[in-house]
Amino acid sequence: MRAVVMRDRQLMVADVPAPEPGPGEVLVKTLACGICGSDLHAFRHAERFVEAGRRAGNPRVMDLSRDVVMGHEFCAEVVDHGPGTTRALRAGTRVCSRPTLVRATGPESVGYSNDNPGGYGEYIRLTEALLLEVPGGLSTEHAAFTEPMAVGVHAVARGRLELDDAPLVIGCGPVGLAVIAALRLRGVHPIVAADFSPRRRELALALGADVVVDPAERTPWASWREVAVWRDLDRAPQLPPWIPGPPLRPALVFECVGVPGVLDQIMAAAPRGSRIVVVGVCMEPDTIYPLLGISKELNLQFVLGYTPDEFAATLTHIADGAIPVAPLLTGRVGLDGVAGAFEALASPDQHAKILVEPGRR
Amino acid sequence: MRAVVMRDRQLMVADVPAPEPGPGEVLVKTLACGICGSDLHAFRHAERFVEAGRRAGNPRVMDLSRDVVMGHEFCAEVVDHGPGTTRALRAGTRVCSRPTLVRATGPESVGYSNDNPGGYGEYIRLTEALLLEVPGGLSTEHAAFTEPMAVGVHAVARGRLELDDAPLVIGCGPVGLAVIAALRLRGVHPIVAADFSPRRRELALALGADVVVDPAERTPWASWREVAVWRDLDRAPQLPPWIPGPPLRPALVFECVGVPGVLDQIMAAAPRGSRIVVVGVCMEPDTIYPLLGISKELNLQFVLGYTPDEFAATLTHIADGAIPVAPLLTGRVGLDGVAGAFEALASPDQHAKILVEPGRR
Repeated sequence: MRAVVMRDRQLMVADVPAPEPGPGEVLVKTLACGICGSDLHAFRHAERFVEAGRRAGNPRVMDLSRDVVMGHEFCAEVVDHGPGTTRALRAGTRVCSRPTLVRATGPESVGYSNDNPGGYGEYIRLTEALLLEVPGGLSTEHAAFTEPMAVGVHAVARGRLELDDAPLVIGCGPVGLAVIAALRLRGVHPIVAADFSPRRRELALALGADVVVDPAERTPWASWREVAVWRDLDRAPQLPPWIPGPPLRPALVFECVGVPGVLDQIMAAAPRGSRIVVVGVCMEPDTIYPLLGISKELNLQFVLGYTPDEFAATLTHIADGAIPVAPLLTGRVGLDGVAGAFEALASPDQHAKILVEPGRR
Repeated sequence: MRAVVMRDRQLMVADVPAPEPGPGEVLVKTLACGICGSDLHAFRHAERFVEAGRRAGNPRVMDLSRDVVMGHEFCAEVVDHGPGTTRALRAGTRVCSRPTLVRATGPESVGYSNDNPGGYGEYIRLTEALLLEVPGGLSTEHAAFTEPMAVGVHAVARGRLELDDAPLVIGCGPVGLAVIAALRLRGVHPIVAADFSPRRRELALALGADVVVDPAERTPWASWREVAVWRDLDRAPQLPPWIPGPPLRPALVFECVGVPGVLDQIMAAAPRGSRIVVVGVCMEPDTIYPLLGISKELNLQFVLGYTPDEFAATLTHIADGAIPVAPLLTGRVGLDGVAGAFEALASPDQHAKILVEPGRR
């Protein structure tokens, strides 16, 4: 099959063997697959990506001397069934799935693997039990947003969001935008979001942010303080007389940048008792000042991925419009265009999400 | 009055003005005051201590060019009442108090302050409303443990301890020992505790640890895994077949060392979903690998101090024997002995807690 392979530090279109569905597995044809920021990182800093996975205890890291076909945000069409399958979803059915193969020997990644090619190839091998049928009225391209938007749904759930919280989203790339959509879904307002890029701030507003900030102009915390005042003053805690200004709701901050130094900035600026959800994937070592956390009793919740239920719920929310994804789709390419799309995505003002359509010529 | 002052980087006994009780304040005579690890740190790394307080937003940091009388773990006796007091506790009453002055201009530290001398001096000025009477049957020396033991009670509460949790305490200095006592109070077992010092491991057992580990001999996590197996297997989560060994209870880890690098070690070794309560006060920058936190969805809760209720409850628990403190008391000195006691406390095998008794000759 045709696929974009990572080989010798380059992305190139090549002919590779199509995967064979094993017991309980299904072969699907890729219809659309989003390019994820983690793919950009895995491509540019491949050794570091592998090393970080190894230190985190992943028993199956990629061998960079062999081909890898990335892509884990896909919508696909059932083509063939392996042995021992129920065949409940017939050939031609459109499906989404978590990018995981469930095997007796343990779960295996689809997309960050030498053996399980992802959505930058024409065909993918998936576990039948994980397949979710795409609702009839939902377009293939929007269904492909299930995986990245589920990341936001999960981050908000793990952050133990309560209706009194005043959320602040730092960074409005695809991860931050998914968090904003999930916050809007939960009905918590106002949502304050910060990004240096005007284009991303526009997208943040489109996805549900109430207030956007350019950190080059003012600190996001200044905007947050203005809107985090308790609406229902009877429910606000009584403050001692020496604390100036009105009482503020609890801060729930989402770190969606993933670059060294951002966590320290947030810990330095966050008010006492803030909860910080770390969603941005920082692959490098990072310096924090524990005394900042201690003196303000901060909480850091690191998050990853989503539960099966959250993934399924996200597909439903996209289908019924509760999670808007249309503004995020800024480009489509065939396999020949993937290397160029990786370049284009380096500029935050140009693109949010580019979909790869292997069938596109 | 006589007091041990921090002056020109040295600890010396000097005559300083006794504090005057202002409105709502009471003058007390120090009966006993514990030496805290933070005092050792504030003495040895005074500039760094002040700088850290400044960056954390403390509006009242110490001026190191002026005298400071430290000491915030005290039991004292009421001597005189300032204007506007209720005089509910008469002269001669033994009291404990949080080391804070509540003033209309904001709270002020007692002990880390140029203006409010702490328990290393003969007299202290305290806010009347914060005084707690020491129960009749409780010795003065044990009452002086209220402040350090309250730190453990608070850490366990902030850690959202549940009965299914399997706790692990890293570091058995006074902070770790206070955490162990608080865990025992909550009836959670087994408690695993690790320290390089044999003396501290003995104290950990005396305070309520069930299993102690010397990290020089084996990793604390190996001991933890042995005992963290679910006792009630019907309540244990079902594990997929590829995960070896029995299911383990959730890990609740207490970082009670406060030295750079320890947090990274814990994050690298902790199982998926662990909650890490950071109680040890690390004054220096520290390096973490966020990807370790992300890939295992770790939670870091930084903690400080205690609530007024926790402080009062701790005094009661010490009085009724629910929090044992007798094994912790390893030395007593008069003011002349404080500088020597600071030296002695550098060796973990010699002492746990040394009490300063300003009336002792």
